[in-house]
Amino acid sequence: MVEAVEVLASDPRSVAMALSAVERGGSGAEELMAALRGRLGRARTVGITGAPGVGKSTLVEAMGAALLSGEERVAVLAVDPSSPFSGGALLGDRVRMPELLERGGFVRSMATRGALGGLAVATSDALDVLDAAGFSWILVETVGAGQDEVDVAGEVQTVVLVTVGGLGDDVQASKAGVMEIAHVFVVNKADQSAADSQVAAIEDALALAAPAPWQPPVLRTSALIGEGLAELLAAVKNHQRFLDGCDGREDARRRRARRRVERIVTAMVQERLKGPLRAAFADALEDVARGSLDPYGAARRVLEAVGREGG
Amino acid sequence: MVEAVEVLASDPRSVAMALSAVERGGSGAEELMAALRGRLGRARTVGITGAPGVGKSTLVEAMGAALLSGEERVAVLAVDPSSPFSGGALLGDRVRMPELLERGGFVRSMATRGALGGLAVATSDALDVLDAAGFSWILVETVGAGQDEVDVAGEVQTVVLVTVGGLGDDVQASKAGVMEIAHVFVVNKADQSAADSQVAAIEDALALAAPAPWQPPVLRTSALIGEGLAELLAAVKNHQRFLDGCDGREDARRRRARRRVERIVTAMVQERLKGPLRAAFADALEDVARGSLDPYGAARRVLEAVGREGG
Repeated sequence: MVEAVEVLASDPRSVAMALSAVERGGSGAEELMAALRGRLGRARTVGITGAPGVGKSTLVEAMGAALLSGEERVAVLAVDPSSPFSGGALLGDRVRMPELLERGGFVRSMATRGALGGLAVATSDALDVLDAAGFSWILVETVGAGQDEVDVAGEVQTVVLVTVGGLGDDVQASKAGVMEIAHVFVVNKADQSAADSQVAAIEDALALAAPAPWQPPVLRTSALIGEGLAELLAAVKNHQRFLDGCDGREDARRRRARRRVERIVTAMVQERLKGPLRAAFADALEDVARGSLDPYGAARRVLEAVGREGG
Repeated sequence: MVEAVEVLASDPRSVAMALSAVERGGSGAEELMAALRGRLGRARTVGITGAPGVGKSTLVEAMGAALLSGEERVAVLAVDPSSPFSGGALLGDRVRMPELLERGGFVRSMATRGALGGLAVATSDALDVLDAAGFSWILVETVGAGQDEVDVAGEVQTVVLVTVGGLGDDVQASKAGVMEIAHVFVVNKADQSAADSQVAAIEDALALAAPAPWQPPVLRTSALIGEGLAELLAAVKNHQRFLDGCDGREDARRRRARRRVERIVTAMVQERLKGPLRAAFADALEDVARGSLDPYGAARRVLEAVGREGG
């Protein structure tokens, strides 16, 4: 795995292998992250999120193609918060982006199930792989699906929330958790008549937010005909310059480190409950199910076992 | 708090106080749960979930009013996966249900932020309070919002997923995680023309699922005019009889105990990271942000500290 790291920058296949290791999780991912130490922090990372069907993929491909110029290398990571019911096919094989591939961009879709810490940990590890591989721009496309979406979006420096008009206020309201963390708002399919009211609705919502140093712009795009793309790229680069100017990249790095370590600690505790602490956990659960112990008492008993077990 | 438990069954104010304690979390909730030991397991619990705007509240009030007869006591818990942006107002004060209150039902909305373990832990504690208070039916209304919705729905015995036609296939696809756990499907606003295709879409999706002993019915309702309500209640009672017949209530109790204790353990570890282990955690984070330690290494260092700290 360490050998693979050495060639990450020059060999797309070693990047693909490293991403597969990250997707599988476990000791492979852990060793890989240890090997990447000190090679990180150069990439600009942008998350593009929004409900299914708003045209994210087309927009991401157009952004990626436009960013591919001169010395810039671009990678797209399409993250699928898979569900056991759908088989994780919300994005899946749909991510093709032929134009971007043809022009030398790197495209990978990732559907993680069950790896330590789930999707957010795997996405964060994948960002490190692509960063170490020397990509200057990493675009992360996520399907809007609640907490997973918020978690994944929280791993990047700039968050673009894509909506369309006409989905109804109620549906949009349910995206409030993502509105909170978005830096650029896009109303896509701007040629549709409902776009105006959607722009107004977002601007109204933003007017209610507390004043902050960064004021998120609300843009219109029509990804299919390329309209608004230049403005979107300008807004993203503008936010990146804003981060550069206010030590925002350092802040983002710290925040990301905190969330990431917290998630991994949590996941490691849960792994121990399935492994070395299984017996202690099973006894406590049986007592809860039987009604002889409350769940908080059971949790304390398990934590005592973690303490005895040690690190 | 123990005194309050004694009068839970007869005094609505003590129920309200106990629910407030649960909402606040902390040692109050913990003592309360310890006091409720041995008084649990009689209530039938039903979750009603779905996207905002599909008419859940009207449906829940109608179900509650219909269940209130004879010896049956009914409580409605409206759970709001609040976001910092919306101020948690997705449900909030909108939950009034005057008809149900007038007929002696108990209605409470709950928006939890920051309590130990978050919404799922608080909801589970609230279910125990209402169970101990002697309610025979507890209806839990949740706004559809990703993982929170799945977590909350997983706390009840019978899950009803409410949809309407015309939201678009893509929007419905994003609810796949909930489809997996629903026992009864309802297409509300059945008088609208798009209801037929919605019923067909759900039936198609269900046909793809692995065969299981319980076959979820797909029903049509029109909550405003009361159409389909009798069929919905029959389906819910049918599922409850199914659970009685196959030891399903015992299974549900075990599954719920496992998730609940797991969540509380996780939350307790996170509380320690903010409290006694704060210094060890801060050092590890600083090393990750500086690039001298990878996040997995940092997580192991923190877990060692948990081990030294003990239970």
